[in-house]
Amino acid sequence: MSMPSAIIVGVGAEQGLGAALCRLLADKGYHVFIASRTLEKIAKVADAINASGGSAEAIETDATDEAAVKRLFEHAFAPQDDIDPPDFIVFNAGINRHIGFRDVTAAEFEEFWRIGCFGGFLVGREAARHLVPLGRGTVIFTGASASLRGKAGFAQFAAAKAGLRMISQSMAREFGPLGLHVAHTIIDGGIDGERLRSRRPELQADALLNIDAIAETYWHIHRQHPSAWTQEIDLRPYKETF
Amino acid sequence: MSMPSAIIVGVGAEQGLGAALCRLLADKGYHVFIASRTLEKIAKVADAINASGGSAEAIETDATDEAAVKRLFEHAFAPQDDIDPPDFIVFNAGINRHIGFRDVTAAEFEEFWRIGCFGGFLVGREAARHLVPLGRGTVIFTGASASLRGKAGFAQFAAAKAGLRMISQSMAREFGPLGLHVAHTIIDGGIDGERLRSRRPELQADALLNIDAIAETYWHIHRQHPSAWTQEIDLRPYKETF
Amino acid sequence: MSMPSAIIVGVGAEQGLGAALCRLLADKGYHVFIASRTLEKIAKVADAINASGGSAEAIETDATDEAAVKRLFEHAFAPQDDIDPPDFIVFNAGINRHIGFRDVTAAEFEEFWRIGCFGGFLVGREAARHLVPLGRGTVIFTGASASLRGKAGFAQFAAAKAGLRMISQSMAREFGPLGLHVAHTIIDGGIDGERLRSRRPELQADALLNIDAIAETYWHIHRQHPSAWTQEIDLRPYKETF
Amino acid sequence: MSMPSAIIVGVGAEQGLGAALCRLLADKGYHVFIASRTLEKIAKVADAINASGGSAEAIETDATDEAAVKRLFEHAFAPQDDIDPPDFIVFNAGINRHIGFRDVTAAEFEEFWRIGCFGGFLVGREAARHLVPLGRGTVIFTGASASLRGKAGFAQFAAAKAGLRMISQSMAREFGPLGLHVAHTIIDGGIDGERLRSRRPELQADALLNIDAIAETYWHIHRQHPSAWTQEIDLRPYKETF
Repeated sequence: MSMPSAIIVGVGAEQGLGAALCRLLADKGYHVFIASRTLEKIAKVADAINASGGSAEAIETDATDEAAVKRLFEHAFAPQDDIDPPDFIVFNAGINRHIGFRDVTAAEFEEFWRIGCFGGFLVGREAARHLVPLGRGTVIFTGASASLRGKAGFAQFAAAKAGLRMISQSMAREFGPLGLHVAHTIIDGGIDGERLRSRRPELQADALLNIDAIAETYWHIHRQHPSAWTQEIDLRPYKETF
Repeated sequence: MSMPSAIIVGVGAEQGLGAALCRLLADKGYHVFIASRTLEKIAKVADAINASGGSAEAIETDATDEAAVKRLFEHAFAPQDDIDPPDFIVFNAGINRHIGFRDVTAAEFEEFWRIGCFGGFLVGREAARHLVPLGRGTVIFTGASASLRGKAGFAQFAAAKAGLRMISQSMAREFGPLGLHVAHTIIDGGIDGERLRSRRPELQADALLNIDAIAETYWHIHRQHPSAWTQEIDLRPYKETF
Repeated sequence: MSMPSAIIVGVGAEQGLGAALCRLLADKGYHVFIASRTLEKIAKVADAINASGGSAEAIETDATDEAAVKRLFEHAFAPQDDIDPPDFIVFNAGINRHIGFRDVTAAEFEEFWRIGCFGGFLVGREAARHLVPLGRGTVIFTGASASLRGKAGFAQFAAAKAGLRMISQSMAREFGPLGLHVAHTIIDGGIDGERLRSRRPELQADALLNIDAIAETYWHIHRQHPSAWTQEIDLRPYKETF
Repeated sequence: MSMPSAIIVGVGAEQGLGAALCRLLADKGYHVFIASRTLEKIAKVADAINASGGSAEAIETDATDEAAVKRLFEHAFAPQDDIDPPDFIVFNAGINRHIGFRDVTAAEFEEFWRIGCFGGFLVGREAARHLVPLGRGTVIFTGASASLRGKAGFAQFAAAKAGLRMISQSMAREFGPLGLHVAHTIIDGGIDGERLRSRRPELQADALLNIDAIAETYWHIHRQHPSAWTQEIDLRPYKETF
């Protein structure tokens, strides 16, 4: 019997959402293709999964590089005896920081777009190319409240994130009727990672988003029956104002 | 050991979402307080649950009658040896039909509001009064795409539904930080009930919303960890245009 | 030669938006039917207009009373030698105050809806009944940011305002193609009236909405060419956060 | 006495919105800096204005080229005896066409973004750099319904337009309180240009957006009093479904 598999793009520290998704999918019996720019980080996540009886492989991938994204999908969808072609793809990459609008350089504006939006386009397109012919599968894009609203100091982030959301909506409308489930999450509030904790130690743990709890909802969306698919969902800590 | 319990308001035919929620909660070990205007219908749902080993009671309740809603909550929250106070409340009532705007009577406009919005206010307020002091619980309001957008022939429906959505958002912002999870669903597309089937037999079953699949997502929302709560989610059949 | 005419519903103090609209329309050569619950207030506005060479009449009207609204429109649309039937209708009524959700009485929730939403339905419906056969005219509903978003303490206000917005959208979709221009405003920030000034004297005048400036935009919307109609517009003071 | 001035970026055929804005501003006594990629087209618009007594100059500018955009603003804001520094900037560039998502090339996705979003960033940033120190001015970005919603075949367009909208919102929130009015239009429906007419001759003229009517609303937004500024407005032909 063969294992189902998934591709998770945008995995950083072990405390992040990407890593939590990888672990949860491994727990569910998935082989996980873990793709990100920094091999060292994803190797750590893959090693931990493999050491505890799961199945994962780290594939160094610059999601902003068309050829690299194509290679990732060709590899993951190549016929294998014991691993099924992926049926669950997550695009979770993105960068963020506050910059006063007049100080955003052209290179910065473009970098936010390349990582947060263009990479999502490349991943979404390869996912559609491979999954639509199969008539099944789930693609989830990780968004933020900035996907919906601009804010002082975050034009570069919001412009990328809103673009990513439109990719997700356009894909859902084109491919939903063909059997591909495309969804978008609005994750509001800090993701409970080490970086945030070390920068803002005053935040209580329960006021932060628990990454395993978020991963559970991604899993739920993937498991939804086609007659009741979610296109967009928000997730925020109960103490978060919104 | 005592059972958890839930209140489901707005339960009609056995093919409807309300009844599906009651059955799913009974399966999960909940005692279900089933409240609706027509005793005959909810008695049927409760009887079926009790006959198959679950625990449910039908409570004739006009959700537009303040005193009746108060009685329902007082009854459900009265201390009992074997049943815990409810921690999950769903408001699922509403009516819909197309009427050209110039032909909507004042009585019709008010009726849509009483059932679809005012009833939700009464249920939401009693839920908050009983649950906020306990610092826990989930309240879900069932919405529709008309909650977001007006459409020719549906002013009376959209006005009620948009009002209900604002109740849900206002409650979430006021009570979320106090531990009460308030959510709103956008259910797009026909709900797979007998009425719709008999009226539009050309619709394929898989193009309709599967009520059990919707109920599963309500359950998932109820079970979310407080650090990753959903306030709003859409649910639609994969063939539905949106 | 006869004068054009307009009906403005919801006119309070002379410092309010309703009164400013009446004055601006009178300046533009309109006969203004001024309708509101308190005859004393609107008589003052009408008298001032008439004293300065304009043409206005105060018509005591409870906008939540179907018969009264019908009488208002029958009166205003009755054939007259020197006054054309109204081609511009504004619904500007509404009440607001903060109430913790658990303390909102059923009577209060209903009162907010009757004044802010049901009255708008009655006025909108009579406007459609009289104007659609003529294939022309403008109806503007005054909204607020609460029309879009619920907030702690404002469920009763947001539920009414969101309902009013759906009336406006549904009417626009049904009647726009028939030549009736239906629009909705999002007025964010305090309206520069005496009440607000006396309650919050710390607010600088320039941070408040200037009612004459708002009235100018209503006029612009009324004058838009049918090939470029606005359905929704926001208006807020430049210092207002949003 | 000196003339006020404006910069209009994204001007194509004489039947387009950009050209209509230039003519309207010239009529209002503005000197118009007309910037676009194709000198031939804008020279024609400028010549027509100058020939009829107005004042305009065509400045060949690739809005996706940072240095070119900087030169444009430095030129327009250079002190002149008879022309005031610009107080009105419009970014009106963009391209559109339907492409099935799987067929969008990486180069196409990037081209849509460069022209529709990155160019808007460069223009918006230079506008902010020059106008914020003066504490006045208006910047309007031209959007579309795709700015709000993705659609099958339009991911590349919606992603660019939604990004542009976030630039506009972020700028409005950062610079509004400093006196810079930043607005965004949602222009729904075909713009009444020769191209559209020749492609879809079945469309009646009155069902199309009249470009002069749109230009009038841009002018109204520019003239709004700071106490009642619009951030977003939609404009669509009365027969357009939405």
